[in-house]
Amino acid sequence: MKSSSRYIENAVEAFKNLPGVGHKSALRFVLHLVKHRPGVCDDLINSIKDIKDNLKTCNDCGNFSDDLLCHICSDPKRKKEVICVVESVRDLMAIEETGHFFGTYHILGGVISPIEGIGPEDLRLIELVQKVKNNEVNELIMAISPTIEGETTIYYISNLLREVEVKISVIARGVSFGGELEYADELTLGRSIVSRTPYAKIAGSN
Amino acid sequence: MKSSSRYIENAVEAFKNLPGVGHKSALRFVLHLVKHRPGVCDDLINSIKDIKDNLKTCNDCGNFSDDLLCHICSDPKRKKEVICVVESVRDLMAIEETGHFFGTYHILGGVISPIEGIGPEDLRLIELVQKVKNNEVNELIMAISPTIEGETTIYYISNLLREVEVKISVIARGVSFGGELEYADELTLGRSIVSRTPYAKIAGSN
Repeated sequence: MKSSSRYIENAVEAFKNLPGVGHKSALRFVLHLVKHRPGVCDDLINSIKDIKDNLKTCNDCGNFSDDLLCHICSDPKRKKEVICVVESVRDLMAIEETGHFFGTYHILGGVISPIEGIGPEDLRLIELVQKVKNNEVNELIMAISPTIEGETTIYYISNLLREVEVKISVIARGVSFGGELEYADELTLGRSIVSRTPYAKIAGSN
Repeated sequence: MKSSSRYIENAVEAFKNLPGVGHKSALRFVLHLVKHRPGVCDDLINSIKDIKDNLKTCNDCGNFSDDLLCHICSDPKRKKEVICVVESVRDLMAIEETGHFFGTYHILGGVISPIEGIGPEDLRLIELVQKVKNNEVNELIMAISPTIEGETTIYYISNLLREVEVKISVIARGVSFGGELEYADELTLGRSIVSRTPYAKIAGSN
């Protein structure tokens, strides 16, 4: 739909840059803004400005933060000797949401992917090796997507740390809770049989 | 999901004000902004500012405009004697998109709806009556949703203009193109039989 206003068209184009937003959704957002100005407009403008100018990155784990250290790294209750290695802040948030992890994180900023031109030098690997070497880290938990790129990255990191004494583990892969076995893919189902867990262990964890 | 940054949380809340945007979508937008700052951020900030401060309303039809008159009202090729009455700018855009209308518009800004507390005095009705009385208007086409509120509004307008010599027509209601008869609701199907069109007339219009 063509609009009668250049301002509306510009705003529609700007909203279309957001992921999953097409022309119709963008126009809906803009017409909503027009209807509810100035309140909703000001909230958006100010919060986007803060994201642009004031948002920092935690010096330790790479998480987004308002200060030099994020709320996880600066929390004395979190175990510094267990580090969960994740691709992105979104993965960190998903793990935090489970409430099952009490260590700290290290965000890689991606996985090794030659197709997308992402090499080891683009990830926060030197920081990870430094952290493991300089601190008393017992365990690195690799919470990385089970894709070819993810597996490559895990292999690369384990190789980098082969002479350092640290336990490297990988989050369990298997069938999802609530999923039906007949719809699970062969690779996942096959692995879930090979890496089966003693029932006593599961019962004990509940 | 809780975030480690107040800035991110504020931005998520601001985006959640947009229609159809929940927490997950808002977070996805914000993380996209973080990744693509400052470019995408600046585009959004500037365009929202323009919407807030610079967008005008056409003095004649009520359409959004960058100038005092919108591009439709200021176009000498559009027939001023035929006015299409619509609820909102979005409906105007939808009709413009069809390419079947060459007159001008009048935007009411809603329909009479006692439940939502919208009375005749909240709509741009005085302007419409003035326009019809002061100019040589031949026809008012009511392109208003066929709901109870819409029908009430059409009746109210026709009553306001009962002593003015102007033809009032309503856009055709009937079964949609591509729709299957068995799924059309009774009211629509019933009306489409009562208001059937001579075939020669349709064939002639193509």
